Amino acid sequence: MRTTRLEAFSDGVLAIIITIMVLELKVPHGESFDTLITLWPVFLSYVLSFVYIGIYWNNHHHMFHTCHAVTGGILWANLHLLFWLSLVPFSTGWMGENHFASHTVALYGANLLMAAIAYYILQRLIVRAQGPECILKRAIAGDWKGKLSPVLYAAAIALAFWMPQVSLAIYATVAAIWLIPDQRIERALGGR
Amino acid sequence: MRTTRLEAFSDGVLAIIITIMVLELKVPHGESFDTLITLWPVFLSYVLSFVYIGIYWNNHHHMFHTCHAVTGGILWANLHLLFWLSLVPFSTGWMGENHFASHTVALYGANLLMAAIAYYILQRLIVRAQGPECILKRAIAGDWKGKLSPVLYAAAIALAFWMPQVSLAIYATVAAIWLIPDQRIERALGGR
Amino acid sequence: MRTTRLEAFSDGVLAIIITIMVLELKVPHGESFDTLITLWPVFLSYVLSFVYIGIYWNNHHHMFHTCHAVTGGILWANLHLLFWLSLVPFSTGWMGENHFASHTVALYGANLLMAAIAYYILQRLIVRAQGPECILKRAIAGDWKGKLSPVLYAAAIALAFWMPQVSLAIYATVAAIWLIPDQRIERALGGR
Amino acid sequence: MRTTRLEAFSDGVLAIIITIMVLELKVPHGESFDTLITLWPVFLSYVLSFVYIGIYWNNHHHMFHTCHAVTGGILWANLHLLFWLSLVPFSTGWMGENHFASHTVALYGANLLMAAIAYYILQRLIVRAQGPECILKRAIAGDWKGKLSPVLYAAAIALAFWMPQVSLAIYATVAAIWLIPDQRIERALGGR
Repeated sequence: MRTTRLEAFSDGVLAIIITIMVLELKVPHGESFDTLITLWPVFLSYVLSFVYIGIYWNNHHHMFHTCHAVTGGILWANLHLLFWLSLVPFSTGWMGENHFASHTVALYGANLLMAAIAYYILQRLIVRAQGPECILKRAIAGDWKGKLSPVLYAAAIALAFWMPQVSLAIYATVAAIWLIPDQRIERALGGR
Repeated sequence: MRTTRLEAFSDGVLAIIITIMVLELKVPHGESFDTLITLWPVFLSYVLSFVYIGIYWNNHHHMFHTCHAVTGGILWANLHLLFWLSLVPFSTGWMGENHFASHTVALYGANLLMAAIAYYILQRLIVRAQGPECILKRAIAGDWKGKLSPVLYAAAIALAFWMPQVSLAIYATVAAIWLIPDQRIERALGGR
Repeated sequence: MRTTRLEAFSDGVLAIIITIMVLELKVPHGESFDTLITLWPVFLSYVLSFVYIGIYWNNHHHMFHTCHAVTGGILWANLHLLFWLSLVPFSTGWMGENHFASHTVALYGANLLMAAIAYYILQRLIVRAQGPECILKRAIAGDWKGKLSPVLYAAAIALAFWMPQVSLAIYATVAAIWLIPDQRIERALGGR
Repeated sequence: MRTTRLEAFSDGVLAIIITIMVLELKVPHGESFDTLITLWPVFLSYVLSFVYIGIYWNNHHHMFHTCHAVTGGILWANLHLLFWLSLVPFSTGWMGENHFASHTVALYGANLLMAAIAYYILQRLIVRAQGPECILKRAIAGDWKGKLSPVLYAAAIALAFWMPQVSLAIYATVAAIWLIPDQRIERALGGR
């Protein structure tokens, strides 16, 4: 079974997630910039989540580029990842509307952590299905990003109860780390 | 006529259904985990329906893998299936917001039952269009899952008026039965 | 320029239109079937529009099957069609929530009429771009459906001010006429 | 890396943007045409934004037609463009619901300006990735449209504080200028 339809379905879900988040940016009552400014926490949350979904799409894109056979396990691991990502609009909205209150920032981090774990499981299943000569396996050999991120998320979740601003800074940092995600895989592909 | 565009359209509709369900998870007013906990029935309904739509996408994917020609009848049987699935966000939301009250659980079951019947009709039309040597026909020869599910749904609908929790348990059981749906078709494809 | 991306974009828009209409089916406050029954006009409108969007997708599918080159004019005629179809969730919702009041039924008909005209323009442009030996041209040679529908829509719009139920019956009749839309094109393709 | 999935994802996002804007057209309470007429500013905003998203899709389509290799930079420049376009439903809704008040018209222009800048960056990156013999480079050689639009947007933003109607007329004019966007690229492709 080929990856075409799995990629198309994932693209569809990710495209919808990234776009319906903007529905949380509810049109304010009031016609001056002053009313608009009160929306800044919702807007900031939106930007952060847009970048995260973009990163996931980008990495997903690269990962399946190396994958040629899809097993039942991969299908479900992919849906598992999409499940956690589908909750991002909710946790983004909750965090934004409550101006980055402690619990909301912790939940947002938990959501990112679950998505990271789901991504890790999916990656594992793809590597296993491709066999020992897997390009992806080589590509993620020194996967310090994949190992560091969950640790940072966990730290940020704990910190959120005291200093939610610091947690936010950590989320932004992890996003920045991932913004150029393809080099490892591109290098492995190039060295083939 | 090939299946490409039918699959793409179905993928699109299923991707949207699975994602807009999260819009029923309305961001609560209140910034602590306590407010969040009140959402558990809506969340549980969401998880159940996410799994069901995932199963339908997965089976749809496998079924059309064996299908090479699309007739007008198949197109409309497919839209008929999508119609019932498009109502899942509604029946999910109604059930979740009313904490699994009897009528809402019965309606949810009726929705699942109609989708199962629509899927059965679609399967029949594909088998008929493919002719006697159809892979799908062999694959679903001993289709106890497809025969058992409607019976279980019907039982759950009746039970919902007395014990909606039992009905929910039945829906979860049917989902669990289908979670590994591809073995039959994969075996038939492998034995070709 | 090939039709692939135009078809993919149209599929996406049509898939979203057909699915977001269900968002007008707002989850009612009340947990018994009685509250559900009050939704019947919204539900009936939804079914009618679902069938109409399904017909448009189906015909669109068939029409572009015969089309191999896309001009700038075709691109914009296609967007023009999508524009009118994108208003269907709105006119459906207005009609359903006002229990098929005269003006709402007239607007719904006007929406269908504009979509029919847009479809006609698109068909014309495709025929012109394909040249005299166009399959589509032969397929629509005796296009009584395409000629009858706008007349029926116009009659239904006028009737809506006195007897909106009759207008609804006309919309349902036109939908029934189109439900098996492909025979003409399939015959022309078969006779090639 | 090929452009297929990037185009599919962009198509998905643009299809969703163009369709969810209609959700701002909230079904009015009242069953006569009189209630409908009060929606005209929201409707007019919708039409304008529909045309703009259509233009972006159309140009995007043409631009990637000339592009055969995707770099990490192009991926992110594309997401950057989609980010600004994803805000169009919000700025459209704000402008429409406030009857084209000064600040709302200025914000709408700012949104268009940011999207134009993002499009320019994306175009630059594609040209650079294709090398000196790039078709796109030749196509946009005398790109007076691309250079004029940001200037007009900036003027319209400034004017919005005094005469928002004039700003609106400018937005409509820019849209009209772009409505036939493909000739340059089609000519360059034809002259190949």
